[in-house]
Amino acid sequence: MSDCLFCKIVSGEVPADKVHEDDRVIAFRDINPQAPTHVLVIPRDHIMSADAVTAEQMSIWSHLLEVAQQIARAEEIAAWGYRMVTNVGRDGGQTVDHLHLHLLGGRALAWPPG
Amino acid sequence: MSDCLFCKIVSGEVPADKVHEDDRVIAFRDINPQAPTHVLVIPRDHIMSADAVTAEQMSIWSHLLEVAQQIARAEEIAAWGYRMVTNVGRDGGQTVDHLHLHLLGGRALAWPPG
Repeated sequence: MSDCLFCKIVSGEVPADKVHEDDRVIAFRDINPQAPTHVLVIPRDHIMSADAVTAEQMSIWSHLLEVAQQIARAEEIAAWGYRMVTNVGRDGGQTVDHLHLHLLGGRALAWPPG
Repeated sequence: MSDCLFCKIVSGEVPADKVHEDDRVIAFRDINPQAPTHVLVIPRDHIMSADAVTAEQMSIWSHLLEVAQQIARAEEIAAWGYRMVTNVGRDGGQTVDHLHLHLLGGRALAWPPG
């Protein structure tokens, strides 16, 4: 996906403040953070959104959570709590069409969630 | 977990407006909806939060997504988009200590997500 911003971050073509990398997933700080900790966890493979994850791809969704749990500990927000959000399409407010899980913490998140 | 509201919904002791049931997951409408579609997808088993999902339990996290995808189609919000949110602990705004994935759609969700 040559035009996908997050694919360019995966490839290293576009820099990012990475907090995690493994063979399937990377995580980096949101450039427009909405909380003291605001990290995006994304698959290396281009998947359009959480809505587009197929049954065969479902293990990546679990791996996103495993990595988010680890980052919450590394960021020392796990004990206080945090919120995870993923946006699908226009009404969801999705701005990059590459699956990403937002991990937000370090402040009390309000309700409604957008 | 005799004191858990969502365990009581699972058991039928407390009524809910259910939109999905299978052997591992149920889904029902939030009693305080924040969008035209606002459904909670929860495991039948008592798991405290997304932060508490163990490696052995990870398949339930994938199943929550599969069910949410199906509900988004049934609710006819998938084409317009939607947001999924899960809260962990105090800062996350978690109000019931039983893992639940919020599925919100039917309006344009704002940013930040709380």
